[in-house]
Amino acid sequence: MSEKLSRLKEILGEVSDLNHAASVLGWDQQVNMPPMGAEARGQQLATLGKIAQEKFTDDEVGRLLEDLQKEYSDVETDDGAMIRVTARNYDKAKRVPASFVAEQAVVGAKAFEAWVEAKSKSDFSIFLPHLEKNVELVKKYISFFPPADHPYDILLDDYEPGMKTSDVKEIFGNLRPKQVELLKKIANAKQVKDKFLSKKYNEEKVWAFSEKIISKFGYDFNRGRQDKAPHPFETSFSVNDVRITNRYEVNSPLATLFSAMHECGHALYEMGVNPAYERTSLAHGTSLAIHESQSRMWENLVGRSLPFWEHFYPELKKTFASQLDGVSVKNFYKAINKVEPSFIRVNADEATYNMHIMLRLEIEIGMADGSIRIKDLPEIWNTKMKEYLGITPANDAQGVLQDVHWSSGLIGYFSTYALGNIVSAQLWEKINKDIYNLDEQIRKGKFEQLREWLREKIHVYGHKYDPQDIVQKITGSKIDSTAYVRYLTKKYSEIYDL
Amino acid sequence: MSEKLSRLKEILGEVSDLNHAASVLGWDQQVNMPPMGAEARGQQLATLGKIAQEKFTDDEVGRLLEDLQKEYSDVETDDGAMIRVTARNYDKAKRVPASFVAEQAVVGAKAFEAWVEAKSKSDFSIFLPHLEKNVELVKKYISFFPPADHPYDILLDDYEPGMKTSDVKEIFGNLRPKQVELLKKIANAKQVKDKFLSKKYNEEKVWAFSEKIISKFGYDFNRGRQDKAPHPFETSFSVNDVRITNRYEVNSPLATLFSAMHECGHALYEMGVNPAYERTSLAHGTSLAIHESQSRMWENLVGRSLPFWEHFYPELKKTFASQLDGVSVKNFYKAINKVEPSFIRVNADEATYNMHIMLRLEIEIGMADGSIRIKDLPEIWNTKMKEYLGITPANDAQGVLQDVHWSSGLIGYFSTYALGNIVSAQLWEKINKDIYNLDEQIRKGKFEQLREWLREKIHVYGHKYDPQDIVQKITGSKIDSTAYVRYLTKKYSEIYDL
Repeated sequence: MSEKLSRLKEILGEVSDLNHAASVLGWDQQVNMPPMGAEARGQQLATLGKIAQEKFTDDEVGRLLEDLQKEYSDVETDDGAMIRVTARNYDKAKRVPASFVAEQAVVGAKAFEAWVEAKSKSDFSIFLPHLEKNVELVKKYISFFPPADHPYDILLDDYEPGMKTSDVKEIFGNLRPKQVELLKKIANAKQVKDKFLSKKYNEEKVWAFSEKIISKFGYDFNRGRQDKAPHPFETSFSVNDVRITNRYEVNSPLATLFSAMHECGHALYEMGVNPAYERTSLAHGTSLAIHESQSRMWENLVGRSLPFWEHFYPELKKTFASQLDGVSVKNFYKAINKVEPSFIRVNADEATYNMHIMLRLEIEIGMADGSIRIKDLPEIWNTKMKEYLGITPANDAQGVLQDVHWSSGLIGYFSTYALGNIVSAQLWEKINKDIYNLDEQIRKGKFEQLREWLREKIHVYGHKYDPQDIVQKITGSKIDSTAYVRYLTKKYSEIYDL
Repeated sequence: MSEKLSRLKEILGEVSDLNHAASVLGWDQQVNMPPMGAEARGQQLATLGKIAQEKFTDDEVGRLLEDLQKEYSDVETDDGAMIRVTARNYDKAKRVPASFVAEQAVVGAKAFEAWVEAKSKSDFSIFLPHLEKNVELVKKYISFFPPADHPYDILLDDYEPGMKTSDVKEIFGNLRPKQVELLKKIANAKQVKDKFLSKKYNEEKVWAFSEKIISKFGYDFNRGRQDKAPHPFETSFSVNDVRITNRYEVNSPLATLFSAMHECGHALYEMGVNPAYERTSLAHGTSLAIHESQSRMWENLVGRSLPFWEHFYPELKKTFASQLDGVSVKNFYKAINKVEPSFIRVNADEATYNMHIMLRLEIEIGMADGSIRIKDLPEIWNTKMKEYLGITPANDAQGVLQDVHWSSGLIGYFSTYALGNIVSAQLWEKINKDIYNLDEQIRKGKFEQLREWLREKIHVYGHKYDPQDIVQKITGSKIDSTAYVRYLTKKYSEIYDL
């Protein structure tokens, strides 16, 4: 290894340590921190972020990268890929002044507070000036970069390197009419019964069951843990310390099982990254969409499938005998896949979920290019909800104010959720070609071959390949919704007898 | 505030944030971290430590301090005291090269591993070469400083700023004959009964009882939490996030209660520091001995007193009816104060504890000045145990290998435990003059006045005053064992009818 490369890795190692330390502090904040600890914690996180940024944007890094890009120009090699990804991150980081990052953090913190109040009072006007300020800052952020085909490209690229607004529009454009058509058919079919899902289930037993499932998936409790937090999430401090959080909701007690599978999907990705990438820019999953393809696959394509429950249902039924009395595995399977247009994205079923995302994407694009006035958002939201899902929110809390993302200036993020769904089905078709009896394996509670396939084709590469490239490499085509449409149509035709 | 002072505080704030982040990572390592996370965590802690050290020892800090010491020369003011303490820490940090700190960490990590093996095999020879290397490094450390009256002064000063080896020798010299005399009397008295203490107690109920007690002491669960860990300790991330850990030992189930009180004593100190000192060199307790005076006071002078149990025993007896059946509060009180020479320091009672420390102090002084050969340690240890406590360890595991400290190069630390005991009794006499009916308050489960006294006289000052100075300020004399001898003699004369 050249001296310059080893120096670069030394710096990146320290930056990675600082970022991972910040992740530990963030995890602790959600899981353990006593309420009064928040102020100091915010300060500590700000300092870690500032120092990491300073170290990463040091001119020395720029000089090293310039030299190393010539020396390691083959981006198919690990070092070449690492240098390519680092140089891209460096370029981005250098364009954005530290003072802007600090301003965005301050504005975002205030906007978050306003959002909490606005949501609790269901009053968009409280949030409006803060969202306007956030959008202003997002536009300023865009201005730091060379003009793109569409201003939203700049935002999207932070989450899906290499993807364009036009790509996403095209993917969603193909999907929407087919998904709308499917939803119409389902609306006219006989609804499935799911009352037993909202009975009272013992929290500890649900929790234990969730850990039994993810252990079978291959989540390694020697390298991770599941804790209670207000929101489920996955976070990693190294390839050998990948944690997930979960919650228990009285109104939807078995949701804990699906959240565990979802976060486990993220965790398996992080646990599977090549350990040689530790403390470099390749050490984590490559994009939010590819990450989401993993979590959604384990949650939905595996965890909401009939073969899966043919394996687990007998034990579930034994554990919750009175709640599931008289419920067959088929009816349980139908219930957990019930389709019903609803207001809240995070509670949406597979058939309606993407509609929530498309609505948000259109609004975000409009915010980024100025074609939407922020004060019109509630009206636009409600109109689109009516158009896409046939329902109108009774108030802003269950409409435009429901998600936290925009309050902290996160614009450009939402489409990754839908892209993840789409990619999960593309991968699934390929996997089922490679593993001919996958359904049968799942029916026996065997997940090794699936997990190893994912590890070998995706996880191990970490950040080496961009999202479109890895999908292309595996499936032979770029991100495309046809597999997802096939998947949804087949699944719901059976469930709803269409 | 001068520009220079505000710049200094900015740097110290960042250093404090880095150190607190490291403390969070350290706490997590003991409480939550999955086993495989250790390697990356070590790396992250090393990076945080290195950057904190670099920032603190930057020449800019030296220049600021030089100027500010002239401007803020009144060390009775908060800023003056902060600059004085910072300058002392800076001087120490500058003397010790970063390469030495790194070497000591590496050697210490290996020595720790060797110690674990040596202890498990009860074979000192495995640990010997590593301890020799540690002692070599300690001598090298001493050589970075100007010659002192005794080389051990350099080590002691890191834990008890301003104290000399001769001070500690004198304090212990006065104490030893009196403590030995007391022990002889007790040995000839009728032993108390304590069999009921080793019965089986429900772990959750013991834990809940411990939290009930410390809540009454004033431990604020909005600003802290108690978690399970292999060893009890207290750690703080800000004045508003002060956590303690505890454990449950099957062989000594109620020890959990006393550990909670002990760590709560440390925590109340940290929770009581003036919030204005946050992110400066004054933000924590002033020394280990003063810290230990607080933990020992709540554990022993309060928690092992008769009035305390006159309040709590009825509830304890209700909670553990079968275990405590037929045991009066007097007999319970005697049992938890049973004196018995034993091999293991951490299990020692109040009357024998200091003897364990004196033995270690003499050995440490001998290691520092070269008058003891490391390979003779087991023999020296056993001889002194016989002399001080009348018993001889059966093997090195219960002798010279029992403590972890020396394995990580911590030499100079032990005497602070005994000094803490001594100071706690000095303070207690003064407190009982100021709060005339303290016993009666404790008997009613009232601890506010005691806690507020401690806060006002000690906690609030954080690191402002050196240990000897704050004891002098409060009690009118420096650290001195006579109050402690009075306390022990009175307590055990009653318990053992001497």
